[in-house]
Amino acid sequence: MRVVILGSGNVATVISSLIQKAGHEILQIASRNRDHAAILASKYNADAVSLIEPEFASADIYIVALHDASLDSLEKINGLKNKFVVHTAGSVSKDVLKNISSTYGILYPLQTLSKITEQIPEIPFLVEGNNKETLHQITEFARTLSNKVISVNETERLHYHIAAVFAGNFTNHMYAIAESFCEKENIDFKNLLPLVNEVTSKVNNNSPHDVQTGPAMREDIFTINRHLQALSSFPDIKYLYLKLSESILKFHEKH
Amino acid sequence: MRVVILGSGNVATVISSLIQKAGHEILQIASRNRDHAAILASKYNADAVSLIEPEFASADIYIVALHDASLDSLEKINGLKNKFVVHTAGSVSKDVLKNISSTYGILYPLQTLSKITEQIPEIPFLVEGNNKETLHQITEFARTLSNKVISVNETERLHYHIAAVFAGNFTNHMYAIAESFCEKENIDFKNLLPLVNEVTSKVNNNSPHDVQTGPAMREDIFTINRHLQALSSFPDIKYLYLKLSESILKFHEKH
Repeated sequence: MRVVILGSGNVATVISSLIQKAGHEILQIASRNRDHAAILASKYNADAVSLIEPEFASADIYIVALHDASLDSLEKINGLKNKFVVHTAGSVSKDVLKNISSTYGILYPLQTLSKITEQIPEIPFLVEGNNKETLHQITEFARTLSNKVISVNETERLHYHIAAVFAGNFTNHMYAIAESFCEKENIDFKNLLPLVNEVTSKVNNNSPHDVQTGPAMREDIFTINRHLQALSSFPDIKYLYLKLSESILKFHEKH
Repeated sequence: MRVVILGSGNVATVISSLIQKAGHEILQIASRNRDHAAILASKYNADAVSLIEPEFASADIYIVALHDASLDSLEKINGLKNKFVVHTAGSVSKDVLKNISSTYGILYPLQTLSKITEQIPEIPFLVEGNNKETLHQITEFARTLSNKVISVNETERLHYHIAAVFAGNFTNHMYAIAESFCEKENIDFKNLLPLVNEVTSKVNNNSPHDVQTGPAMREDIFTINRHLQALSSFPDIKYLYLKLSESILKFHEKH
C-alpha cells in the first residue's frame, strides 16, 4: 500500500517503521512542524509536508497519528476528503472522521510507543471501521503490521485504553518514583530490577489479584507506619504510599 | 550448614527451597501452627516444631522468617539464646535480636516471594551483622543462596524496602486493578500483556522517568476527562486514576 502519515511523534515514528518493514511505501509524512516531518521522512525516502495547507500525494491509506486534541480540527485539513483515513487514538471516536470520508476507521496500537525504542515490541492493534468492508480493509492492513489484530467497538477501545493507563503508564510512574527515591537516598535502583521482572513475570501466568504481596496485603500496620515515618521528608511520595496502601486494603476487602 | 527455620509462610517456603538446593541441611521448621510447619518440614525430611515452648535442635544458623509484628516477642522464645540468629524482614531493626544473642544479623530477600512460585527468581539478599565477623558469616551463607549479596545498613535496608513497595507491590496492584476493570467490562486483560512486558523491558534499560508516556504525561486533559467520565461507576478506580494522573503531572513538573 502507498501510505501518507499525519504526525511525527512517538506513534507516527514507530508505525512508520512497521509500515516500511511490511513492504508498504511511505509517500509523505505530514506534521505541523515541517522540520519534524522532514527528520522522519528522510528515513523512508518520503516527502515532508506541513499540515498548514498541505498538498497530499494520492495514497491508498492516510494514517492520522496526531495529538487527540488535533483530531477535532481534522475537517479543516484539505486533501483528506473521501480518502481512506484511519486515526490511532485510544479514546477518540472514529466519528471525527465521518464528515471527511465514507471510508474511515481506527488503527489503535495498544502499546507504549516512544521514539527511542531500540526494538519494536509486539503491538496488538485494536481496529474499527465505519462499515464491514472498511473494517475488513483495516484488519487486512493491520495484519501486515502485527500478528495480533483485535476488532473492537468504540466502548471496548476506550476501556482498553483506561486499563492500559493503569497497566502501563501508572506502573511506569511507580518505577519512576522508586528510582527518584533511590537516587535521593543514595541506594541503587538497579537492585530492584529482579523484583520488577518477577512481578511482571508473575502477571503473565497468574491473576495479579492472587499474587499480591507487601505490607498492605499482610495488613502489616507496623511496617506501613514505619515507612510513612521514613517518608516524612517526601510528602508527595508519602501521600501516594498511603493512598495506594488504602486501595490495596480495600481491594482485598481487608478494611 | 545445619539450619533451623522459624516460620512457614512465603519467605520461609522459598528460602527453605534455596537452602536445600545449596546443599545445607534443614533440621527443623518451627511455626505457631505446627501443622503448617509439618507441611513444609516434610519436603526436607526436617522436624516440625511448634513455636510455643519449642525444643530447638542444635543448628549452625537460625533463620527467623516470621511476621514483622512477631519479631518483638522473639525474646520470649526459649532456645534461641546465644545462637547464630538472623531475621528476614525489610523494616525491622536487627536490634530485636540483641538481647537474644551476640551473633545476629539480617538476611533480607529483596524480592516478592510466594508459596506458589513455580521457579525461584533471582533474589538479591541485603545483609547486616552485629559486627564485622558476623556480617562476614552472614555474607558467606547468603552467597550460597544467591549471586547477589549486598551489605547495607539499617537505613538503607528500610529505604530499599520502601522502594520495593512502589516498584513491586504497587505495580502489581495496578495490574490487579486493570484486570478487575477488564473483567467487569468484558474485555480481555491478556491483550495488555505486551504493554506490561514492554514497560518492564524498558525500565531494565532506561530511566523510567525518561520513558513515561500516557495522557497525563502528554497533559492530554481531553483524554483524562473522557477516562474519568467512563469510570463514573467505578469510584475507587476513578479516584486512583485522578490521584496518579496528578502525581505524574507534578512529578514531571507540568502543573
